Amino acid sequence: MNAIIITIGDEILVGQTVDTNSAHIARELNLLGISIKEIVSISDTAEHIIKTVDQAIGNCDFLILTGGLGPTNDDITKKVLTDYFKDELVMYPAVLERIKNYFVKFNKPFLEVNGLQAMLPKKATILENELGTASGMWFKEKGCNVLAMPGVPYEMKGLLDKFTEAISKEYAVGDFYHRTVQVIGIGESYLAQMLESWEAKNRGEGISVSYLPSVGTLKLRLTGTLEQKETIDRRIQHLIDTYSKYVIGGEFDTIEKVIGALLVRKQMTLGTIESCTGGSIAKKIVSISGSSAFYLGSIISYTNKLKEELVGVKKATLVANGAVSSAVVKEMAENGRKKLGIDYCISVSGIAGPTGGSDAKPVGTIWIGIATPTATYTKLFNFGLNRKRNIQGTVVASLNFLRLILTDQIESE
Amino acid sequence: MNAIIITIGDEILVGQTVDTNSAHIARELNLLGISIKEIVSISDTAEHIIKTVDQAIGNCDFLILTGGLGPTNDDITKKVLTDYFKDELVMYPAVLERIKNYFVKFNKPFLEVNGLQAMLPKKATILENELGTASGMWFKEKGCNVLAMPGVPYEMKGLLDKFTEAISKEYAVGDFYHRTVQVIGIGESYLAQMLESWEAKNRGEGISVSYLPSVGTLKLRLTGTLEQKETIDRRIQHLIDTYSKYVIGGEFDTIEKVIGALLVRKQMTLGTIESCTGGSIAKKIVSISGSSAFYLGSIISYTNKLKEELVGVKKATLVANGAVSSAVVKEMAENGRKKLGIDYCISVSGIAGPTGGSDAKPVGTIWIGIATPTATYTKLFNFGLNRKRNIQGTVVASLNFLRLILTDQIESE
Repeated sequence: MNAIIITIGDEILVGQTVDTNSAHIARELNLLGISIKEIVSISDTAEHIIKTVDQAIGNCDFLILTGGLGPTNDDITKKVLTDYFKDELVMYPAVLERIKNYFVKFNKPFLEVNGLQAMLPKKATILENELGTASGMWFKEKGCNVLAMPGVPYEMKGLLDKFTEAISKEYAVGDFYHRTVQVIGIGESYLAQMLESWEAKNRGEGISVSYLPSVGTLKLRLTGTLEQKETIDRRIQHLIDTYSKYVIGGEFDTIEKVIGALLVRKQMTLGTIESCTGGSIAKKIVSISGSSAFYLGSIISYTNKLKEELVGVKKATLVANGAVSSAVVKEMAENGRKKLGIDYCISVSGIAGPTGGSDAKPVGTIWIGIATPTATYTKLFNFGLNRKRNIQGTVVASLNFLRLILTDQIESE
Repeated sequence: MNAIIITIGDEILVGQTVDTNSAHIARELNLLGISIKEIVSISDTAEHIIKTVDQAIGNCDFLILTGGLGPTNDDITKKVLTDYFKDELVMYPAVLERIKNYFVKFNKPFLEVNGLQAMLPKKATILENELGTASGMWFKEKGCNVLAMPGVPYEMKGLLDKFTEAISKEYAVGDFYHRTVQVIGIGESYLAQMLESWEAKNRGEGISVSYLPSVGTLKLRLTGTLEQKETIDRRIQHLIDTYSKYVIGGEFDTIEKVIGALLVRKQMTLGTIESCTGGSIAKKIVSISGSSAFYLGSIISYTNKLKEELVGVKKATLVANGAVSSAVVKEMAENGRKKLGIDYCISVSGIAGPTGGSDAKPVGTIWIGIATPTATYTKLFNFGLNRKRNIQGTVVASLNFLRLILTDQIESE
């Protein structure tokens, strides 16, 4: 079975909003074995919506629409679909009640326009929105399951959960299978060279191999049929066993989750002393719920003065080596262990750019330090000229550096 | 003039990659007056690429493709386009030289597969990629400008810059005009109610009004023709003048940029003492280049112990009020000013969730404090049940709280 996703809203076409919804929907439907044929973003005009729905509806089993269900006048999806399916809007009292309660709960005044959100198409199955006022609408028309949801990501996610639960009971799952590993610390072309024969073997059997690079990380995916499940599992396991220095885990194993699990298992604690990353490493760690089990705190010493006064880096070390140096990140990490009362401390000092570089230390020069209960490690990285990329790359590299230490793989460097 | 954007790659259709490229391309082309008709994501099969290009090419002035230009076997865009335009691949020596230099510069071994990246279509104008090995290819075929770029965002951005510079010299700009303001601290439906007559007046004159909500912020956009430029500018200025409590600035004025400009103008410094946000406020501030002019540092005291030991919050205050309280964020902010040697200190303590809530302090309860050279302010916020949303919402709310203080608008609360 397959699906087409249509995202409605000028905000995407003018580039003001990045469409994160489609990726989420694609992922969730894929887990049910529903493949995505196409993702289309269109403007919120009735003409464009009708034309696109009309083209898609005969070409897929599931047509998923997001956007245009809000309370303001530019939100026209509900009206357009109701007309398109020759339906009519009626009041759903239970929905109205829930919307009113929503406003009471958040202590906000209830406006008439919010009440109109309970006027919904008669023929549709209504999916109630626990996190907002726009309901999901599920039509079964013209041989297609058509689901319209609001575009606000967290509202959409809740509604999609309800929908996928319902359809996974109603329909059989599909017949393809894919598995992904997350790779850190090696570039796409090097990995491809290293895996040349492994890749050829897969392709020879009709199992496709995809490389998906992003800043500091790379995903490698095998896709085949359900019948090839065992082969794919075996090939993936081979990668994990052979290249554990680079392969950090499976599809949903982010580096911060992997670190968190390792520290919890060892009952060890973590903190950071950051400079150019300005808290980005800490933010990444804290993004996992349950991080308080192992993460205690951080100091962001953006200036040399705070590196001295708050972190206790010696003035002599700063003067002799400069703030971006092995010696300074070593002191930052070691002092951080004591100041924060932690077992492992990550430290960073670098030049994120675009200014601040020199011939000796160009923009992109980043020193990372890690102090453990038994030793301190430092390493030089360079992620190039882009500020954002330098910061993101440092976050991933520092956490992977810690992973290699925690898994006793650092000697193999 | 208009454009269609085609994103090529299974990674988007399986939801592993969020398509941020299209938003960037849309924004850049919009600035030239080129409107985006449609954004389409398709799989990386020759059949699907040809079909989609073939449908789009007669329907737009600019056809922008991203993805599928990497060095691995799943990257087929170059070959498909070369065949489609009945062209042939030839070696571009200058490109080869640049790619080789790229590997020397980053001290990486040069592989044969990297050399193949210099084999490019004969008829295309080649845009050299300063940040990677895949060049941009610009075809002028079938009455359309077709640009193919790699999908890696920072590489794509550099190539798009070269393309937009070239086409802005070659073509006249379009005939529509839009302006956007950024709004913080008020929900979509309340804003719409407040602006009811203003909105009706715009719509009556054919100027469209769009609301684009995201977590903690809202964009409001007016779109009309170039002839309506003066009216649109006047209407936007009216919003800015009348609702400065909510309107933080124009299209590119993020809250962190606004705060940074205010502090630089006042020659004042900033730091943060964070708990549940785990460095997210600091990260947002440091994301602006030039932040070192006003941002000095932070302490992330995720535990009560560090709130006491490192920040100096009194044990009695923690015991009497709990960590999530006005009294604690007050001490955090006031002590933060001294510890960090800063003029303004933002402090946060809250329950991001999903665990840790109680009846008295449910998940989503967030106290924000701000200490200034003359006073300390604290305020209670609640952003609901979702961890990510709580953290993002707190970042925006804390910076906006500071903005209101810096612009003497806090009494009007």
